[in-house]
Amino acid sequence: MTKHLISLAAMLALAAPLAAQEEPQGAPSPNEIVAKADAKEWIAIPAEDLLVMTLAPAADGSARKVVIQLMPAPFSQGWVENIRTLARAKWYDSIAVNRVQDNYVVQWGDPNYDNPESEGAAKPLPDGLKVMDESAYVEQQVSKADIDRYAIMHPPGSMQDNYAPTTYFDRGWPLASDLENAWPVHCYGMVGVGRNYSPDTGSGAELYTVIGHAPRHLDRNIALVGRIVEGMEHLSSLPRGTGALGFYSEAEAGLRTPILSVRVAADLPEGERPRFEYLDTGTGRFAVEKPGQASRDDSAWFETSFARYAEARANRRDPFFIVPAGGADICNIPIPIRRAGE
Amino acid sequence: MTKHLISLAAMLALAAPLAAQEEPQGAPSPNEIVAKADAKEWIAIPAEDLLVMTLAPAADGSARKVVIQLMPAPFSQGWVENIRTLARAKWYDSIAVNRVQDNYVVQWGDPNYDNPESEGAAKPLPDGLKVMDESAYVEQQVSKADIDRYAIMHPPGSMQDNYAPTTYFDRGWPLASDLENAWPVHCYGMVGVGRNYSPDTGSGAELYTVIGHAPRHLDRNIALVGRIVEGMEHLSSLPRGTGALGFYSEAEAGLRTPILSVRVAADLPEGERPRFEYLDTGTGRFAVEKPGQASRDDSAWFETSFARYAEARANRRDPFFIVPAGGADICNIPIPIRRAGE
Repeated sequence: MTKHLISLAAMLALAAPLAAQEEPQGAPSPNEIVAKADAKEWIAIPAEDLLVMTLAPAADGSARKVVIQLMPAPFSQGWVENIRTLARAKWYDSIAVNRVQDNYVVQWGDPNYDNPESEGAAKPLPDGLKVMDESAYVEQQVSKADIDRYAIMHPPGSMQDNYAPTTYFDRGWPLASDLENAWPVHCYGMVGVGRNYSPDTGSGAELYTVIGHAPRHLDRNIALVGRIVEGMEHLSSLPRGTGALGFYSEAEAGLRTPILSVRVAADLPEGERPRFEYLDTGTGRFAVEKPGQASRDDSAWFETSFARYAEARANRRDPFFIVPAGGADICNIPIPIRRAGE
Repeated sequence: MTKHLISLAAMLALAAPLAAQEEPQGAPSPNEIVAKADAKEWIAIPAEDLLVMTLAPAADGSARKVVIQLMPAPFSQGWVENIRTLARAKWYDSIAVNRVQDNYVVQWGDPNYDNPESEGAAKPLPDGLKVMDESAYVEQQVSKADIDRYAIMHPPGSMQDNYAPTTYFDRGWPLASDLENAWPVHCYGMVGVGRNYSPDTGSGAELYTVIGHAPRHLDRNIALVGRIVEGMEHLSSLPRGTGALGFYSEAEAGLRTPILSVRVAADLPEGERPRFEYLDTGTGRFAVEKPGQASRDDSAWFETSFARYAEARANRRDPFFIVPAGGADICNIPIPIRRAGE
């Protein structure tokens, strides 16, 4: 701090960054609500559900690790099991990031697979991978009791969604539902399984993550298997490919980022295992108001920190804001995740 | 093409990239609809509304140009005029990209402004900049007749929005409205004016663009003034800052991308002026169905290519898809923009 703060008066007519140094008093921000959550509201993520993906070092020599959390049952478990099988067979070691399409996805896999420009042979897959058929995309059944038990509910008309009758949070994941089936949604940082035209062509060997506005039209059309919980910036900041769909052309082969290894965290020595936890989404209820309506102040709806956080995301009353939105879409309420024990 | 295509049968149980080489027959994709639009459906963007921002060359020596389209009346015109004033005063020359926050914004401005870690002095602003007060954020009045005339309308219950009573497209821009006022929305690639806590602190000297999921809670809270129409990848792929809010710390000062110049396209020699056009959004009507409903087939709603494109974004029936979504949010229907005369 080598310079004194500029007074608010002096700022008038000046350009100002979004960051500001003098924070007026006001309602807590969503992040402030999360920071005050009770320790028991944080739920540990099992080491069996975490993958550590090590990319080749950056140009400046710095290490690049990406940590992926796999989805729990009942979601996408056939593909999730394939991914553990592929990781344990070390199949992912020495593949690469082959596609970076702006405002869409980063995709990694075998650069020689299904690539008509490549001279190399595709890498054989390990035995034992499951073939998932079309029904696996659309029938990820949850019980109505689960929705009632776990979902952060909201009154009709609020948290409207263009892609499904309802959206909600269940055990730390953003979901959509028709009240019979439920399915994960394509928010920023979610990880899915690349496939070809036929729905049963996605094994888990080709994976992608979302690096732009939620492409929700992919929900139930491509399998979501997890999300990036650390190191997203190592993928989202990669140079975009200029080939069709953002694939790196053969002339750009040097841009492909090598993946050195992918390991299930449970298989690492205990001292090397990353530990993460998410803010419990499962036991509270909250209301997100309809646009233009005054905010609801019913404490029964705000039993948990996550419910208060989600409500504050939808109705920003912290000092920067002029007009609270009165709502939020599910991908604009990212689930808080942090390193555990730090 | 050095390798023959793999048959669909051979693909089973194999990993497949999202791109596929053998395309089955089916309904046209949104991009195919745009490609077939009539030449007269494309509307030229005035050179006075285009800014050419030249960044320092990339590490490999390649040029980096970003083209920004400023918003037309009646939206944000005070700030838009300030931005032309700043460009014509060459004020933006030698500023830098100072902030890259993953899944949020890239921001550029004077690295010494309002930066308590910096030893340098802030760059003085040119005379004649307007000071916009709070009302300018929330009162961007359009006539009801304009909404009826220009908007792509949709039946009640479809194209639901969590942030406003309605959303629509007007003269090539994504807007939200309470049917009295209308305002631009924070979609990927939109450009806004950084400010401090007081709403009148944003002049246009600090600008940002959205590089993640639409942060719609910022609508009406920060002024939107335009969008990136070319070169977005030069901003979205920049390394993320590790300081608060993604600002580059002083230790990371070397990561700041210098901005060499920003010019109004109309001021460039004619041969150097970029020319762009957008697909007319203004004269058609279309319906986006409610989730779960069958698709509407009422040709009166699909008079224009844009209407058919938007409907196809909401109901993907091209061969890759298993389940059409039955809807789309406004930021998942990007307005087609292309170089003119190419």
